[in-house]
Amino acid sequence: MIDLSLLPDGGIGWLDASGPRGSIVLSTRIRLARNLEGYVFSQRAKDADRTAVLTRVEEAGAASELLRGAVTIRLDQLERLDRQLLHERHLVSKELAGLDREVRPRPGAALMVQGGVGVMVNEEDHLRLHGMRSGFALEDAYAQLEALDADLGRLLPFAFHPEFGYLTSCPTNAGTGLRASVLIHLPGLVLTKEVGKVLQGLAQVGLTFRGLYGEGSEVVGNFFQLSNQTTLGKSEDELLDHLGKIVRQVIEYEEQARDVLLRTAPDEVADKTWRAYGLLKYARKLTFEETMNLLSGVRLGVGLNLIPGLSVYTLNKLLIFTQPAHLAALEGRQTGDPELPTVRATYVRRVLETEAV
Amino acid sequence: MIDLSLLPDGGIGWLDASGPRGSIVLSTRIRLARNLEGYVFSQRAKDADRTAVLTRVEEAGAASELLRGAVTIRLDQLERLDRQLLHERHLVSKELAGLDREVRPRPGAALMVQGGVGVMVNEEDHLRLHGMRSGFALEDAYAQLEALDADLGRLLPFAFHPEFGYLTSCPTNAGTGLRASVLIHLPGLVLTKEVGKVLQGLAQVGLTFRGLYGEGSEVVGNFFQLSNQTTLGKSEDELLDHLGKIVRQVIEYEEQARDVLLRTAPDEVADKTWRAYGLLKYARKLTFEETMNLLSGVRLGVGLNLIPGLSVYTLNKLLIFTQPAHLAALEGRQTGDPELPTVRATYVRRVLETEAV
Repeated sequence: MIDLSLLPDGGIGWLDASGPRGSIVLSTRIRLARNLEGYVFSQRAKDADRTAVLTRVEEAGAASELLRGAVTIRLDQLERLDRQLLHERHLVSKELAGLDREVRPRPGAALMVQGGVGVMVNEEDHLRLHGMRSGFALEDAYAQLEALDADLGRLLPFAFHPEFGYLTSCPTNAGTGLRASVLIHLPGLVLTKEVGKVLQGLAQVGLTFRGLYGEGSEVVGNFFQLSNQTTLGKSEDELLDHLGKIVRQVIEYEEQARDVLLRTAPDEVADKTWRAYGLLKYARKLTFEETMNLLSGVRLGVGLNLIPGLSVYTLNKLLIFTQPAHLAALEGRQTGDPELPTVRATYVRRVLETEAV
Repeated sequence: MIDLSLLPDGGIGWLDASGPRGSIVLSTRIRLARNLEGYVFSQRAKDADRTAVLTRVEEAGAASELLRGAVTIRLDQLERLDRQLLHERHLVSKELAGLDREVRPRPGAALMVQGGVGVMVNEEDHLRLHGMRSGFALEDAYAQLEALDADLGRLLPFAFHPEFGYLTSCPTNAGTGLRASVLIHLPGLVLTKEVGKVLQGLAQVGLTFRGLYGEGSEVVGNFFQLSNQTTLGKSEDELLDHLGKIVRQVIEYEEQARDVLLRTAPDEVADKTWRAYGLLKYARKLTFEETMNLLSGVRLGVGLNLIPGLSVYTLNKLLIFTQPAHLAALEGRQTGDPELPTVRATYVRRVLETEAV
């Protein structure tokens, strides 16, 4: 099995809750789509083309300042559990991990990780550079990624068109190739039933939202990923500025909603959050979906200072390690093990017991 | 306000969980319907008739061995909260307490209490003698009641017909005037979905079932009152023997159902019972109905030794003191107070904190 501890910060430094607005914004993620001139796009590429792309990228990585010494993980050589682990850590997409249609990843599918940045190779585009940060930190996340992009750009012939910008496999990503997303927790807006209005508003300003695992994933536990919809016709800074402005507004709406709840229904909010805590602390069987919903309830209580002595870091840790592959890996089980809900409940109790409430 | 501590054992000695089969059978209750010759039945009685009946009973009580020194409570002189308190302690019927149609009790409506026995005066019959015992204790309950019946029978002209036995206001009570009921907790049969079959079987052997508060009350929290349907044509001993035999059988079915659950779904049972405990321990708002259901779940866990360190006595106490009037009286509130669910949750947490789990 893959040893995730080999990755710098175990690949989850971005979830340590140390970043700005950490109790509402879990993390900030930016990716840049890049392709190599002279190589056919991934979808139409043969195995030999893909392997050639990987070789080019590995060579560039070794020669680069920022990717030198990176861990390279060949996804086609990994067992399913390991691929799912990487996906659950948001390091590779469902597609690259071969999880969506249960097709083993093809040769050349790889992930390179170094510090807070990573490169998916032979995903929808030849390269998907990504950077993650704890909390709400668009500038930081982009600064590191921009440096990596420049670094690799000196070593690799990125496909670039003077009019259209970076060329991508899917035209919706062309131009900057940038997608920035912010994983945000909006229980206040959900409880006050205002979230629909806010999400509709996003579409009108060129943003979109997804669930915890990105494209196509459902919203569970009131966790939303807000991101830019368009990548073309604006500069990277404009895109990030715009997203940042809107996210700050959404945070403000969320805080207002929480104030309203505390003022108009304090008992109901306390009840909701403590019930969630009571169930996490005593249940003997927990599905991951219920766990996320309960963690959402507890997170609200911690954010409102209703539940003392419990850290957001612990909640983030539970969110990561109760996922099926993480839990299975941790406890020496298979992801399909029917005992997993029992194992999950035991794990949650053990973690909560270490924190006095 | 009425001071219930004046009553011997606060009127709830029968719920101390000390009796036989205390974790499955909460209590045993027997009542005898009696009427006085020469007085019109209660329903058709004028206030003067009712007052005259009460005077006769009080005089007899004072002269009797077993009722001498009894506390007499005039229900027509009590506030609603106090009448509801007595009803919640199963000492007076909803009808005598004037709670069902919110009609103040008429003059003469009274309760006399002494030890584990009581006499309702001017209910559906002139006298309703009743005795309660903790756990499954038909013989004990009846022995005490039989003595009281004989005692009062020497001092009062009970209406008795050589062929029909004791005459009662409603013919379904004539004969022995006896109704014995056992308050039993059947979560195992409910979870294994076998309870319907068992309850149908009761009807075939002349028994019936009701909810926690007797006639017309709903079954909540898996608490059932099993009692004899017929009162005529059999002796008291035969009626009690028959009920006892059937209840023993129901207890056996319940224990078998619990064995099946432990064998086939141990995690599910543990999960159910611990979740109930977690909610009781952490909720900030609890309706009485939810409280009963959660207490039912915890009670199953205690009965199966899944939850250590928690006594059945504590659960019984919570069942009594979280009722609206008890809670309101205890905390200086009105029963209609919208804060009551919050007050209830606080009370439950306080009681559970005194017991280490």
